[in-house]
Amino acid sequence: MAHAPRRAALRELLRAADLDAALVTDLVNVRYLTGFTGSNAAVVVHADDSEDDESRTRLVTDGRYTTQSAEQVPELPRVIERACAPAAVKAATEDGVRRLGFESAHVTVDAHTGLLDVSGECELVRAPDLVQTLRVVKDQDELASLRQACAAADAALADLIAAGGVRAGRTEREVSDDLERRMREHGADGPSFETIVAAGANSAVPHHRPTGAVLRTGDFVKMDFGALCDGYHSDMTRTVVLGEPAGWQREVYDLVAASQAAGRAALGADVELASVDAASRDVIKAAGRGEEFCHGLGHGVGLQIHEAPALAATAVGRLAAGMTVTVEPGVYLAGRGGVRIEDTLVVGPHGAELLTMTGRELLVL
Amino acid sequence: MAHAPRRAALRELLRAADLDAALVTDLVNVRYLTGFTGSNAAVVVHADDSEDDESRTRLVTDGRYTTQSAEQVPELPRVIERACAPAAVKAATEDGVRRLGFESAHVTVDAHTGLLDVSGECELVRAPDLVQTLRVVKDQDELASLRQACAAADAALADLIAAGGVRAGRTEREVSDDLERRMREHGADGPSFETIVAAGANSAVPHHRPTGAVLRTGDFVKMDFGALCDGYHSDMTRTVVLGEPAGWQREVYDLVAASQAAGRAALGADVELASVDAASRDVIKAAGRGEEFCHGLGHGVGLQIHEAPALAATAVGRLAAGMTVTVEPGVYLAGRGGVRIEDTLVVGPHGAELLTMTGRELLVL
Repeated sequence: MAHAPRRAALRELLRAADLDAALVTDLVNVRYLTGFTGSNAAVVVHADDSEDDESRTRLVTDGRYTTQSAEQVPELPRVIERACAPAAVKAATEDGVRRLGFESAHVTVDAHTGLLDVSGECELVRAPDLVQTLRVVKDQDELASLRQACAAADAALADLIAAGGVRAGRTEREVSDDLERRMREHGADGPSFETIVAAGANSAVPHHRPTGAVLRTGDFVKMDFGALCDGYHSDMTRTVVLGEPAGWQREVYDLVAASQAAGRAALGADVELASVDAASRDVIKAAGRGEEFCHGLGHGVGLQIHEAPALAATAVGRLAAGMTVTVEPGVYLAGRGGVRIEDTLVVGPHGAELLTMTGRELLVL
Repeated sequence: MAHAPRRAALRELLRAADLDAALVTDLVNVRYLTGFTGSNAAVVVHADDSEDDESRTRLVTDGRYTTQSAEQVPELPRVIERACAPAAVKAATEDGVRRLGFESAHVTVDAHTGLLDVSGECELVRAPDLVQTLRVVKDQDELASLRQACAAADAALADLIAAGGVRAGRTEREVSDDLERRMREHGADGPSFETIVAAGANSAVPHHRPTGAVLRTGDFVKMDFGALCDGYHSDMTRTVVLGEPAGWQREVYDLVAASQAAGRAALGADVELASVDAASRDVIKAAGRGEEFCHGLGHGVGLQIHEAPALAATAVGRLAAGMTVTVEPGVYLAGRGGVRIEDTLVVGPHGAELLTMTGRELLVL
């Protein structure tokens, strides 16, 4: 059971913060702590419970999930109630909780007022990042799911290219649908976010959505996509060219590839987040194209497609072993085309290990 | 341009609430008001602007969306800033706004603190439902998208059944993937939520997720699915039986069908929301199966798969012409199987019009 140790780790954070319990209402965090995947739930984790006695730790969900919650979380006491968060606060208060941490970066202003209405003597204490603090470092179960998700994306792209699926005459949308179908064939539950396929001038739009635009010889085709496996997301971008690349295309591609390699090489435990961004960005700046790299270098990835830590110029903090991050510099020439190269990696004590394996040389199709 | 009249309608609500402007941070509401579909944005709508002069109404987004926002929202002044909501508050304050409504059911406790840091003399006033109040009644553009989404789902299911796609030997997952692929073939951007295909005993789990479970002769197969078109969601459930139905299957099916017809017949402008739930639920209660219908009757559907109004026993308020809602009673016999029948409808002055057209007789496949 992978989830009990996560709750045990949370209890250590609670004791360090002098909190009697945590109210967890962010459904992603509920899933992380319990494995429950329903759409309405809250969890109370008591600081004084233990892995042997979780009698005051509760999962609250509603009547639609009575069966599912019993199957997914047999080990925790459950409360069945439509208004999960207030019911969780009531249960905590009745169990003697006097300082209850809540996810202040997730609970809305109105919901907070509703919790204050039922909290009585129990103080609601802002605790925005308790579970996120745990989630940044992935455990073995999580890494297994992330490896599976990255492998599904790698295999789908290899199949797509081998089948001639990226070719002049097809639309962005056809390529996108084809790629998503192939990820499912390789075991994905679906795409991990809205697949980006951007051809020609569209490739200069960082987050272009696939349209009926037709791929043409001479185009850059940028594909940013990922697979979802067991709730875990992979994220990868590859940019190919249809037909012999023009000089500017080769130049931009080589620049982004060098920048991406520099960013990957900068990863490692205890490295400052901002310095990874700088290592990659400096390569592009030195070529006079800093303005054309208009976004951060990367982000954490796990139960969410974007999660902590951010790899950006303004990021504060350091990497740790077990963090999974993307490295994805890009250069975008408005009206002409753009290149982004992105991998998902897991940080190690020294350096980082690639989870997305597809090669990074410029593919000419 | 469909969006300017929506902003004009919002201005009327602002004047009625004595607000100088609205800060809109819920991205669904941003899309509703402007058509912008990026992942980071805020909008300020000024009460004193008009359709002819929107010079103090602003769209705020970040550098990734400079091109996209200019294309999607050419008519509004833009601010490019990573931290959209604080930048929007600053701009509003500089434009003389002294009472700024914010979406207190969407803004988190921590985000609110961040807004207070920059709001200066401007008062932040809770205004949780301003845009939602507009969104419950759909305009012609919205109804056109909803019709398209419902038609894609109808056509996909018809194709699936005609092709023999729902048959003993296939897995829930195969049926689900097949259905989603066919929705795309009929113009959907994708499924409108995670498709439910639940066979045999799994059909008794209201929100079962498709697994590798194999469909067998004698099973109920419950399919709850929808298509996404232009951001609008359709929602439909049909339950079929593989091979000749047993007596209990026929009984449960007929009961749910009668309940669903009663719920549909109860719809109409000015009808109390709770009375629609009651009209449908009473049929099931009268048969002694009230406990086995363990969820609300339906929900609004539009830019979100679940939105106002809720059709439930505890709902307060009345229907209005132009609202789009689902009617979806179910009876679930744990360990044996369950039936749900669901349509999406648009409420009219008298009665309601079906948007999902697939027949409701028990299909024996």
